[in-house]
Amino acid sequence: MAITYAQAGVDIDRGDELVERIKPLARRTRTPLVVSDVGGFAGLCRVPPGMSDPVLVSGTDGVGTKLKIAFATGQHGTIGEDLVAMCVNDIVTCGAAPLFFLDYFATGRLSLEVAEAVIAGIARGCELAGCALLGGETAELPGMYADGEYDLAGFAVGAVDRPALIDGRRVQAGDAVIGCASTGLHSNGYSLARRVLQTELGLALDAHVPELGQTAGEALLTPTRIYAKAVAALLDGHDGRVHAQSHITGGGLPGNVPRVLPEGTGVALREGSWDPAPIFSLIERGGPVERREMWRAFNMGLGLVVVVDPAFADEAVRRLSAAGERATIVGEVEARGADVQFEDRVRFV
Amino acid sequence: MAITYAQAGVDIDRGDELVERIKPLARRTRTPLVVSDVGGFAGLCRVPPGMSDPVLVSGTDGVGTKLKIAFATGQHGTIGEDLVAMCVNDIVTCGAAPLFFLDYFATGRLSLEVAEAVIAGIARGCELAGCALLGGETAELPGMYADGEYDLAGFAVGAVDRPALIDGRRVQAGDAVIGCASTGLHSNGYSLARRVLQTELGLALDAHVPELGQTAGEALLTPTRIYAKAVAALLDGHDGRVHAQSHITGGGLPGNVPRVLPEGTGVALREGSWDPAPIFSLIERGGPVERREMWRAFNMGLGLVVVVDPAFADEAVRRLSAAGERATIVGEVEARGADVQFEDRVRFV
Repeated sequence: MAITYAQAGVDIDRGDELVERIKPLARRTRTPLVVSDVGGFAGLCRVPPGMSDPVLVSGTDGVGTKLKIAFATGQHGTIGEDLVAMCVNDIVTCGAAPLFFLDYFATGRLSLEVAEAVIAGIARGCELAGCALLGGETAELPGMYADGEYDLAGFAVGAVDRPALIDGRRVQAGDAVIGCASTGLHSNGYSLARRVLQTELGLALDAHVPELGQTAGEALLTPTRIYAKAVAALLDGHDGRVHAQSHITGGGLPGNVPRVLPEGTGVALREGSWDPAPIFSLIERGGPVERREMWRAFNMGLGLVVVVDPAFADEAVRRLSAAGERATIVGEVEARGADVQFEDRVRFV
Repeated sequence: MAITYAQAGVDIDRGDELVERIKPLARRTRTPLVVSDVGGFAGLCRVPPGMSDPVLVSGTDGVGTKLKIAFATGQHGTIGEDLVAMCVNDIVTCGAAPLFFLDYFATGRLSLEVAEAVIAGIARGCELAGCALLGGETAELPGMYADGEYDLAGFAVGAVDRPALIDGRRVQAGDAVIGCASTGLHSNGYSLARRVLQTELGLALDAHVPELGQTAGEALLTPTRIYAKAVAALLDGHDGRVHAQSHITGGGLPGNVPRVLPEGTGVALREGSWDPAPIFSLIERGGPVERREMWRAFNMGLGLVVVVDPAFADEAVRRLSAAGERATIVGEVEARGADVQFEDRVRFV
């Protein structure tokens, strides 16, 4: 009896069926710059015209063990939004406009329903970010993932004209620091969050938690905020007054804000000047988890931090708010010794 | 006793240590177009100057269950080359010059030694392809991968000037079909290959197989050929005479060659006009696996198929050979009814 590929665990026809289901989702994300549909060997996208020295800005990320919440709740519809957010928020910090996105979806045995739900979330994320879902790979890896589990990786590319690149070099003492609220944990710190909420506090994902005003599962699955369109509104004709932007991911505020600060500067952030989602205090008390560890593992309520010319601060807050963000001035840039440790360049006051 | 992130299974310091080890590897792949080092929020790369209408060509892929061979043999040094090959070979088919590459490496518990070996392979692949390793994500996902296992996704971006885009539209009956030898299975069909070699034939990976002239593990781990530089040599001033290129991956010759053929055309390939590695016949007899299934699961000895103006065929073979490929004329384009099924547009004679 001859052996077939399907018997070895890989069903090419099921993969082809998924491609057919994805096509209309991807088509809705098409932008005028896209040259091809999904399906060829590669995705094609023009460079935006009119740039004197176009620079491509790229980023890749996954969503970490937030996946485990999707597996446990059977809710696969928004994790794709998280994936897009994690990648796109990185590239917009440089001032880049997102152009396109590609995804990698790997699983043991392909479930068309799950894969389609995940990729529909990716497509919605691309719409929210204003970029095209240009391609992707769906990998069936028998024996590598537990039943019903999968991993996701995303790749985003944007473009910025080199003179408009935002790289933190203009940051100086006295600049205003603006924070945009996160929607919750976003996609970082889930191993610690699950350890505390599920193991230490024994919360079931489907149990209503009064402090959260929703179930633990709902709070943990809240999609990562996509800041692309708000950043575009902020940067429109900002004329160099936006000096730096930082996407708050793994490492938290102390691990991410200093990445865009020039030597000899730091920031002072006023705790209490923003309003974190209740899940952070639940985790902190539930562990307990030390404050310092909380800052390092979680965004603690701010998903995007923007450093601007102080004369532009109110206008910046207005623009971000008009774009739907909860934005406030949360601190300022201060001079710091060049010998100050990386993470100590963020000071909480 | 307070809980820390490390106790929850994620070691940020180990991740930082890996980043430090990767930096010199990535630095060696820098090209003159790269603006930033790895380490910021995003990777920056200029668009090559001098193009009238630059088009970005992007592709993402993984290496499938070839990973299982790396796990079983403990040889992690070349799987990264496979990853680059799978992505870059896709984008060069459009005529794009590779610009940069990003990787996603996910594991349960990070082993610095394994991760560094894998990423060193990725960096070497980038050097072979002439593109910059511009960034990457290393994800530690406790509980998602078996001990010692990991998954990999890659993402490549290249650029081509729109008038020079190769999209198969010039293909016509009478065109010559040139095949470039694969080095073996490349990175497709491993679930079937392992089923036959390990389960049916009971071959140990470290056992010398006379028919292969090496161990099964060595044959199965042979890196996927990277055709980027050969394609660049082929396309240099080709003046429209290269009509189409197809990277032979999952789906084999019948699944990939028709993707670049215009309607009403097909190809006739002369079996015996190229020289497949012995692993294909070992699998075919060992299963047994039907011939038709073999064509669909494996590249069967050809990793890249190029369709050229017949007057350019000898010159094309010369160029590819000079670039180090084993290239031969393997068939020609013929007229086919527009109603011929996709896979039947490849005819073996």
